[in-house]
Amino acid sequence: MRQFLAPVGLDNSGRIVLSDSRDYKYLCRVLRLAVSDVISVRLPDGQLCCMTVSEIDNGARRIVLTTSDMQTDSVAETGIQARLIQKLPVRYWLFQFLPKPQKMDFIIRQATEAGVVSIVPVIGKYSQLKCTDAGNRFARWEKIIKEARQQSGSSVPTAVQKPLFLRDAIALWEQEKDERKCAVFLSEQEAGENSLHACLSCSPSVVAVAVGCEGGISAEEQSMLQEHGFVSVHLKTNILRVETAALYGIAAVQSIIMEKEKWLLSE
Amino acid sequence: MRQFLAPVGLDNSGRIVLSDSRDYKYLCRVLRLAVSDVISVRLPDGQLCCMTVSEIDNGARRIVLTTSDMQTDSVAETGIQARLIQKLPVRYWLFQFLPKPQKMDFIIRQATEAGVVSIVPVIGKYSQLKCTDAGNRFARWEKIIKEARQQSGSSVPTAVQKPLFLRDAIALWEQEKDERKCAVFLSEQEAGENSLHACLSCSPSVVAVAVGCEGGISAEEQSMLQEHGFVSVHLKTNILRVETAALYGIAAVQSIIMEKEKWLLSE
Repeated sequence: MRQFLAPVGLDNSGRIVLSDSRDYKYLCRVLRLAVSDVISVRLPDGQLCCMTVSEIDNGARRIVLTTSDMQTDSVAETGIQARLIQKLPVRYWLFQFLPKPQKMDFIIRQATEAGVVSIVPVIGKYSQLKCTDAGNRFARWEKIIKEARQQSGSSVPTAVQKPLFLRDAIALWEQEKDERKCAVFLSEQEAGENSLHACLSCSPSVVAVAVGCEGGISAEEQSMLQEHGFVSVHLKTNILRVETAALYGIAAVQSIIMEKEKWLLSE
Repeated sequence: MRQFLAPVGLDNSGRIVLSDSRDYKYLCRVLRLAVSDVISVRLPDGQLCCMTVSEIDNGARRIVLTTSDMQTDSVAETGIQARLIQKLPVRYWLFQFLPKPQKMDFIIRQATEAGVVSIVPVIGKYSQLKCTDAGNRFARWEKIIKEARQQSGSSVPTAVQKPLFLRDAIALWEQEKDERKCAVFLSEQEAGENSLHACLSCSPSVVAVAVGCEGGISAEEQSMLQEHGFVSVHLKTNILRVETAALYGIAAVQSIIMEKEKWLLSE
C-alpha cells in the first residue's frame, strides 16, 4: 500500500477514528500495522497526510490515526512514497464500451493505476446484454478503484459512472466545460490521416479516449462519436484484446502528452 | 482465433496433416470446426495461408488441412482477419526483470499481443529467487505465446528466452547487429532530460525496452544497462504495477514510433 484512502477527514483534534471493521481488518490483519507505525493517508479532500497509528482496539475493531510530525522516512510503505508521486497535469477520461465482466474489472484497475479520473462504461451495440446490467458490479468497481488507488498511490480521485447509453455518455462529456478538450476513439480500421500527435498538439487539459468492446464500435456509433468531436485514430499495431486495448490507448495518449515539450508537428 | 499456428509446413500435395491430439482437440472441440470450414493458417516460415479442413478422423484424432482457393470471406474467424493485419516495421524486444510468476505470464501474453519479437526474462537483484527457476514455466510461457498469437493474429514470431542474468541478457542484445538499434529502460525516478521522442527520433528498426520487477532495477543494474547503451527514461505517470508497466512502456514506444512521420524533435 502506498496510501490509505481515509473515509472521513480529520476531526478537530487532527485525528481519524476508523470504526468500520473492514478498515480494521485491512490495516491490522492484512498490513499488520501496530501502534506507532506511520502511514500515508489520502484525505477525502485530496490532501496527503502522514499519520501515526495511535490506538488499536482489537475488541471493538477500531483504529485511531493521529497526524504525525515524524520523518516520512519511517513510513510503512515499500517503493516510492505517495508524497513523491507527481500530479498529472491533464485529466483523462475513458469511455469503455462494456466488454465481458471480468475484462471490465481488469480495465478499471489498470485505468485507475494510470490515473484516469472518470471511467464511463458505455452500453454499446456489441455489448452483451448480460454485461450491461451493472447491479452489484458497480459496488465491485468502486472497490477495485479503491484498492488500485491505495496500491498505486494515485492522487487522482478516479470515479466510475453507472453504465450509460452512448448518447448519455456523450452528453456527460459535453458537460465538461474545459476549453482545451480533446477526444479520440480507437479504430481498428485505418481511417484517414488522423494521428494522436495531431490531436494532442493543442496541449489539451482534458482528454477522452473511447475504446470498443469485443466486436468493436459499430459504424453508427462511430458516426455519433464523430459528430460530437471524437476523432477516429488508428494505432498501427497488432489487433489487441479489449482489455489490452484500453491501457494501450491510455499509455499512447499519456506518453505523447507527457513529452509535449519535446516534439512539434511535422509540416 | 484469428490464425492457427501450424506446427509443420505444407507437404508436397499442399496439405498439412495434424496428428497431435492437442491440435485435434483445439480445432474440433474448442473451435468446433467441421469438414469444409476454412481457416487462416500461419506456416512455420511466417507465410499466411487460407486452408480448408478436408478430413477429420475422430478415431485417430487426426485432421487434414488443404490449401484453399476459396474466398477468404468465408473464413471461420471473428473480427479483422489475420491477412489484413499490418506487419510491424520495427522489431521490439522486452527485457523483463523477473516478477512473481503470475505477473510474468500476464506480461508475456500482452507483449505477444503487442507484437514483441523477443522476450528476455532477466534475473535481477530484486527478482525473488523462487521466480528465477524457469523449470516448467518455460513450456508454459511458450504455450501462452502460441495462444496469444493465434488469438491476435500476430505475424510476429514472438519467442521467449530462458531467464538470463543481466550480463548475459545484454550480451544477447549486443548480438543484434542492426545498425539502427535503440534501447531504453523505464525508470521510476526522474533522470535527466531523456525523452522517448529523443531516443526514437533516429527511426530505429529495432527497439529494446527494459522494465523492472517489484522493487525496480537496482542502481548497479541501471549503471550496467547505461554502460551498454540503454537510456534511462522516466514516464511522468502514476506508479504502475509491474504487469501494467510492461505494456505501458511498449505502448508508449510503439505509438511514438508508429507516428514517426507526424512529429519532429523540438530543438
